[in-house]
Amino acid sequence: MASSSRALTRFGAAATRLSVAEAVRPYANFATQPILRSPAAISNAARPAVFRQFARTYANASAPAPKKKPGKIRTTFKWLWRASYLSFIVGVGAIIYDGYLDRNPDDQFTPDPTKKTLVILGTGWGSVSLLKKLDTANYNVVVISPRNYFLFTPLLPSCTTGNIEHRSIMEPVRQILRHKKAAVKFYEAEATKIDYERKVVKISDNSDIKGTINETEVPYDMLVVGVGAENATFGIPGVREHSCFLKEIRDAQAIRTKIMDCVETAAFKDQDSSEIDRLLHMVVVGGGPTGVEFAGELRDFFDEDIKKLIPEISPRFKVTLIEALPTVLPMFSKQLIDYTESTFKEEHIEIKTKTMVKKVTDKTVEAVVTNPDGSKSTITIPYGLLVWATGNAVRPLIKDLMSQIPAQKDSRRGLAVNEYLVVQGARDIWAVGDCAVAGYAPTAQVAAQEGNFLARLFNNMAKTEALETRINELSSNLNLKPGNVTEITGEIEGLEKQLRHIKDIKPFNYSHQGSLAYIGSEKAVADIAWLNGNVASGGKLTYLFWRSAYLSMCFSSKSTRLFITYDYINKLLARNRVLVALDWVKAKLYGRDVSRE
Amino acid sequence: MASSSRALTRFGAAATRLSVAEAVRPYANFATQPILRSPAAISNAARPAVFRQFARTYANASAPAPKKKPGKIRTTFKWLWRASYLSFIVGVGAIIYDGYLDRNPDDQFTPDPTKKTLVILGTGWGSVSLLKKLDTANYNVVVISPRNYFLFTPLLPSCTTGNIEHRSIMEPVRQILRHKKAAVKFYEAEATKIDYERKVVKISDNSDIKGTINETEVPYDMLVVGVGAENATFGIPGVREHSCFLKEIRDAQAIRTKIMDCVETAAFKDQDSSEIDRLLHMVVVGGGPTGVEFAGELRDFFDEDIKKLIPEISPRFKVTLIEALPTVLPMFSKQLIDYTESTFKEEHIEIKTKTMVKKVTDKTVEAVVTNPDGSKSTITIPYGLLVWATGNAVRPLIKDLMSQIPAQKDSRRGLAVNEYLVVQGARDIWAVGDCAVAGYAPTAQVAAQEGNFLARLFNNMAKTEALETRINELSSNLNLKPGNVTEITGEIEGLEKQLRHIKDIKPFNYSHQGSLAYIGSEKAVADIAWLNGNVASGGKLTYLFWRSAYLSMCFSSKSTRLFITYDYINKLLARNRVLVALDWVKAKLYGRDVSRE
Repeated sequence: MASSSRALTRFGAAATRLSVAEAVRPYANFATQPILRSPAAISNAARPAVFRQFARTYANASAPAPKKKPGKIRTTFKWLWRASYLSFIVGVGAIIYDGYLDRNPDDQFTPDPTKKTLVILGTGWGSVSLLKKLDTANYNVVVISPRNYFLFTPLLPSCTTGNIEHRSIMEPVRQILRHKKAAVKFYEAEATKIDYERKVVKISDNSDIKGTINETEVPYDMLVVGVGAENATFGIPGVREHSCFLKEIRDAQAIRTKIMDCVETAAFKDQDSSEIDRLLHMVVVGGGPTGVEFAGELRDFFDEDIKKLIPEISPRFKVTLIEALPTVLPMFSKQLIDYTESTFKEEHIEIKTKTMVKKVTDKTVEAVVTNPDGSKSTITIPYGLLVWATGNAVRPLIKDLMSQIPAQKDSRRGLAVNEYLVVQGARDIWAVGDCAVAGYAPTAQVAAQEGNFLARLFNNMAKTEALETRINELSSNLNLKPGNVTEITGEIEGLEKQLRHIKDIKPFNYSHQGSLAYIGSEKAVADIAWLNGNVASGGKLTYLFWRSAYLSMCFSSKSTRLFITYDYINKLLARNRVLVALDWVKAKLYGRDVSRE
Repeated sequence: MASSSRALTRFGAAATRLSVAEAVRPYANFATQPILRSPAAISNAARPAVFRQFARTYANASAPAPKKKPGKIRTTFKWLWRASYLSFIVGVGAIIYDGYLDRNPDDQFTPDPTKKTLVILGTGWGSVSLLKKLDTANYNVVVISPRNYFLFTPLLPSCTTGNIEHRSIMEPVRQILRHKKAAVKFYEAEATKIDYERKVVKISDNSDIKGTINETEVPYDMLVVGVGAENATFGIPGVREHSCFLKEIRDAQAIRTKIMDCVETAAFKDQDSSEIDRLLHMVVVGGGPTGVEFAGELRDFFDEDIKKLIPEISPRFKVTLIEALPTVLPMFSKQLIDYTESTFKEEHIEIKTKTMVKKVTDKTVEAVVTNPDGSKSTITIPYGLLVWATGNAVRPLIKDLMSQIPAQKDSRRGLAVNEYLVVQGARDIWAVGDCAVAGYAPTAQVAAQEGNFLARLFNNMAKTEALETRINELSSNLNLKPGNVTEITGEIEGLEKQLRHIKDIKPFNYSHQGSLAYIGSEKAVADIAWLNGNVASGGKLTYLFWRSAYLSMCFSSKSTRLFITYDYINKLLARNRVLVALDWVKAKLYGRDVSRE
């Protein structure tokens, strides 16, 4: 627009100065405007002098045609520009509005005390997914967990290096509950015993600060167990004492502190050379996504940040990944496993497969390697930091419950549940996530889907009961006063039809959306369920897709239905999405923080 | 501009459709353009038919003159808009550029090993200010501290409630050192003993992870002691066991965790009523800025966040501030003290002055109150969280050094130093900050200025020595070959003049820039040194000023020369400034995180 505005100004100036030539020239400028396509088209017969005259000066002046191009470019640029800043404004607006909603929820009402009491144990993937979808008006819901926040575990490995700040992946449960229409009770406590004969849960506050009342019982009509599992050490001596796990936020913080402690100790004055090698040797046990992602993040941390700040020691940094199985990432397709292994080779991350850890001391790991020829040999690996990211073990609470229920005696890995996630042999107890054995892998995706399923189930059950009570009312009326029978029977039939319709709920069926893992140096691998087939992809693009899956969630949930991470992500509050996005920008801009808190 | 562009398009369209009426109407639109002031001025004699004709249609059409106003508004708006988005771009650009510099420092060179070894103990206000101003090319600088980051203590109280994330006020020392021209050694270790006879410092790595070498000696030619002080408990029983301090980042984290622990324990099922009152009673001992700011932040946290999420308990929350002296904030002027006290009254923060704590148990504080009539009475205060923010005590390292130096035997509060910050009775040892007794209050401002002073001093000393050696060379030449004597003597005189000029360095003199404290509910108090007088101000405006002092630092340092916080702030890396700004926005937008990690 700029040039035409200039043109007009000149015209204005000219007009007041009363010079025709001046006054007419401006129109030439219009010729240079892209919006006026063909001045030729105007020079035509059958038109009054006024305009013919004008058109001529016009045609003459339209000589500097080449000027058109820059104009075009300018316009396109201008529009791009407007688009970009408008979208920016919209984005910011969306964030602020969301923040407002987040902080100012509507008032809640307390559900009718005569309703059934639904007790939910745990605040992990299963329980929180259930809570988010559950209509809390139908029950008196009580949530019990020693953790008053939901943890977005897929990004936990990124927290260990400060690529993401841990608060960004913590979602306060009270925030989630506050946004339900009907109030929900939350107790920060550990469930110590489920007494399924008496239908009560024993809870105890085992945090540092205890009140005079720190143990009590919570009665339930319906119970959902989503307490997850604990870290498996397979009874290997020294694991619990000397290694870090990677399951809770405190684990990630501890690892972050220890990494820097190793680095600073290696940089200590006159440090022994072999000792430097030991301190800078980070050993990861477990070749699943967690172990692999952690190894990748570690490598990035050193290559991108430590190298710049402490160049003298960084070349001696080494990462080793130990896996008992023949391959890492068993849930991925062959070519992705190969891709991961070759990438790790480039990154100088050593992979030791078919290697069983036998013993852990404060400075070494002893393991038995099965060589290609089938022979076995024992190796001793000195380490500075040991991270234990292997399987799950059953929690005492679950063991105890299983021991109470005869039908559970054959179950080993957790509570055996039927296709409706009902704990077999128990009444009114459901189980979700890693503490339930439904025949699926113990992943966040499974737990989340199980939670969603139970929410649907419970919402339906409530509807059903409401209808049934209404039908009973009507039929009793029917007997009392034999008036307008047809009418009432009609209504009853209608309700029964609805009833049949509702009751028809299919058993739980897990739909695998795929697997995704970050493998370091801005590369990721993804096995994504696509239509009926599977799409395997690896590399930087997959990595960008991985990130965009998160970032795009900052504003909408629809846009990511296509993304594998959808199931995860729409569990995250927009708040956390924004924080994660900010963290990534921060890490890119300023690097990771090497302070040892 | 939009409308004129529409006009032009219509004109274009019209022209091709060859209708005069159509073709001419567009000019009407130009009349509505602000840039064409007086169409009347055009209708004038002495001009050809062409234009007269045209001008007429023009004049006729120029009837809708009132339309001018919106045009003006639109233009101003447009320009404002451009200004704002341009400044936005510039801002973002500045941040990115700064981040780039931050991550990509120039290569460093190692100083000549024959130069003197300057050992600096500590990474607090004094030591870091010294490091930032010191020309590290003149010495072999070694920094020793158990903390590998600088902590921006003025914002520590904000960390306790999550108003600011603790990482935002931690500045990696290695980052600071990496940006010096000449390389500096850093050892993360605690100085355990200063042997000033042998001129060595004994250091030991007392972190969790130790190498085979974890104790050694560092020899020095010059030593700067900036290890600060430790928390004073005045030998009151139970303080160390049961109360939280507020000096280090771990303290802030512990407090943040405990606050939420108290809240969750108070919300425990069937919690005893009196116990709820105890758990929600937060007691702060010490009426200095730290204690006052912490009390204010606590109040904000409950009013702005806890109240929304756990409405049932929040009314019972209570804060009590205990101070042994007759007033809080003794360093502030009378009216600001009164203002603070009245504000606290509004915020329901109880201030107990003239109250001496005698004993602390796990759940109560026993104190002796001096009543207005002079009589004394003992009170017992039950608490959920107790924060101890009183004075400083001398660290063992300093005590030991003082015991070695006869001249220090009368000094109680720390190392007595002369007006050049030289430790009295010791050679080549300087002291800065809370461990030095120079006759000033133990504040960050003092420490920072002392650090700057030593940097200037050391830079000068280096220059001086260089000149002196040069002079000696010349004078020796003078004796050797009695040629061009006048010339050499001339040069010598020149050098000696420079020397005198340099040597002339005044003793350290603290210039108090003022005091500033946040007192909750978006109010602050400030006593600012202004010209020769003092400006006392309190309230929301002061609070805005307080924040803007920080935020304005995001881009420039000049803009804040006027601000009291300048001395603090220009110690913060731009990185941290941006993070702090982001944290404030986050807290405003999403509230503080109530997750208990």
